[in-house]
Amino acid sequence: MDNRIVKSENQYHGPVFDVESLSVNLPDGRMRKYDLVTIQDAVTILPLDAEGYVHFVRQYRIGANKEMLELPAGKIETGEEALATAEREIREEIGMAAGKMQELGRFYVSPGYSTEYMYTYLATELYPSPLAPDQDEFLNVVKLSLDEVMQMVRKGELDDSKSLAALFQALPYLKNWTLR
Amino acid sequence: MDNRIVKSENQYHGPVFDVESLSVNLPDGRMRKYDLVTIQDAVTILPLDAEGYVHFVRQYRIGANKEMLELPAGKIETGEEALATAEREIREEIGMAAGKMQELGRFYVSPGYSTEYMYTYLATELYPSPLAPDQDEFLNVVKLSLDEVMQMVRKGELDDSKSLAALFQALPYLKNWTLR
Repeated sequence: MDNRIVKSENQYHGPVFDVESLSVNLPDGRMRKYDLVTIQDAVTILPLDAEGYVHFVRQYRIGANKEMLELPAGKIETGEEALATAEREIREEIGMAAGKMQELGRFYVSPGYSTEYMYTYLATELYPSPLAPDQDEFLNVVKLSLDEVMQMVRKGELDDSKSLAALFQALPYLKNWTLR
Repeated sequence: MDNRIVKSENQYHGPVFDVESLSVNLPDGRMRKYDLVTIQDAVTILPLDAEGYVHFVRQYRIGANKEMLELPAGKIETGEEALATAEREIREEIGMAAGKMQELGRFYVSPGYSTEYMYTYLATELYPSPLAPDQDEFLNVVKLSLDEVMQMVRKGELDDSKSLAALFQALPYLKNWTLR
């Protein structure tokens, strides 16, 4: 059954996300309270160039308190279509536009406590077309072959869930990728 | 550079997560504030039985406000080792224990605004050994072959990031899985 939320009360209002206290109707008839983070939807892009390199970005992330390697990603701005966000974000983050932008799938990032919903895209036919990044973004582009990506996964060196999930969704589109 | 957090102030204290306001030192010397969700680490388990079926769970999730298909998962309790959580959670959620529990990897779930960190395991040599689930857990077990899983991914019917990420991390261990 869908929609079990009976009541929602705001507990915290912040610049990026809010916290709501939900009253949820359990299947056995009892009611329980859960805290939920409400946050804008987002996109993740897998940019694959003609030479077979995936373009990652490396940047400091507060949740890990360290620099992380991730696929380019960003929040959908109010009124923006997910595809437009993807087209904007790869120009801002890796300085490239895509001749072809193909939707790979969609997923909830952490459905137990957050509404965050992510659209993923495969970006190909890349060409230089930089846009100025956000004022607080400081990132480096790192290009890796698909084999190098898989080696990093095997060694546990790629530790970002949206990047791993998008790479998995891309498998049917990466016909020539030898996995082992 | 790691550790750019200069100050952390609690903004919200809840039963499952807190919200901290961080003052972060940007690479250009400026300071900026970010909100961060602090939450317990967790595990995701990919249970693969001798017949080649993956055991998923289907349950209502507040972040999606609908029932979702996910790999078994759960929070690490205070003082518990990640491996012990994985062993406990598959008994609670799918009623099976694993003769072999192999770590697949680790990842940050949403490092832009949350500390949530996930350990993933491949559980094999399964045998019945149920533990009572949490009082507010109401879930159904769904067994899918690896081919059925990949069909669902292709159709966009598997929309949970941790499950997609864990399946990707498992690829090197699933030698006989024909992807296409």
